[in-house]
Amino acid sequence: MIRKITIILFLFVAVVGAHAQTPKAMADAEQAIRTADQDWLRVFAAKDLEKSVAFMTEDGSMMGPNAPIATGHEAVRKLFSAFFTLSDLKIEWQPVTVGVARSGELGYSTGNYKMTFKDPTGKTIEDHGKYVTIWKKQSDGKWKVGYDIFNTDLPAPASP
Amino acid sequence: MIRKITIILFLFVAVVGAHAQTPKAMADAEQAIRTADQDWLRVFAAKDLEKSVAFMTEDGSMMGPNAPIATGHEAVRKLFSAFFTLSDLKIEWQPVTVGVARSGELGYSTGNYKMTFKDPTGKTIEDHGKYVTIWKKQSDGKWKVGYDIFNTDLPAPASP
Repeated sequence: MIRKITIILFLFVAVVGAHAQTPKAMADAEQAIRTADQDWLRVFAAKDLEKSVAFMTEDGSMMGPNAPIATGHEAVRKLFSAFFTLSDLKIEWQPVTVGVARSGELGYSTGNYKMTFKDPTGKTIEDHGKYVTIWKKQSDGKWKVGYDIFNTDLPAPASP
Repeated sequence: MIRKITIILFLFVAVVGAHAQTPKAMADAEQAIRTADQDWLRVFAAKDLEKSVAFMTEDGSMMGPNAPIATGHEAVRKLFSAFFTLSDLKIEWQPVTVGVARSGELGYSTGNYKMTFKDPTGKTIEDHGKYVTIWKKQSDGKWKVGYDIFNTDLPAPASP
């Protein structure tokens, strides 16, 4: 009988452990997402193409403005490559809110970005705006990007 | 002893039931998000301001392009009001992917939007793009919008 109770308790802990998170575990997961968000920025700002792409899940989607959705590593690589050719590109972003599901495998970061680059005439273009990134915890414990979308805070340019 | 096992089993079911979802429950939650996504469209396309705002959580954020983030019902109401003044506004969106955490209280919808309106000169402006909405299940079971962000697929207008 003791053995039965032990087995049930073991199952209990195993299943609850697999699906529910303590407040501490949730805070840790939020911190892990915050860290991943800024680790991604570091390789992206350094224009490290392969490391930047590797932050996305295999079927992850980049949803940048003025372009169709890019889904999967090949499409994302093409989009990032084009972006990295911008002259004198400087980019940073900062998470403001981070959230994670109680089950600990799905979360998001939202925040602000700021970037500058030079247009073909040499004029410095400044942009700032906001973003949402949806993070998915992988089986190896790493957080990867399922979706990333952003847009500018600047007013729309006047129509020609 | 039987009573002890019963209590442990009861706790087991209660805690697992509260935190983890069966595949069926997850599919149901995804369907509920899909439905909420399109219910929101219905009141939004009808320019029903209060019902559109009510789809957001109290501290929910609209992250529209060409504007700073609008957080909370008052700020969102102001943003939607301005949007609804667009002449001859027609808008629709359609979820493509929907996901939900195993714990069943956090999810997202991503998809495409299409809209037309008339500018002050009477010219019809057409836009289409993509969006990400983060959904949070409320204590009454309703899904509400925590964050909504979208951007255009159209190329950036040439600089003046």
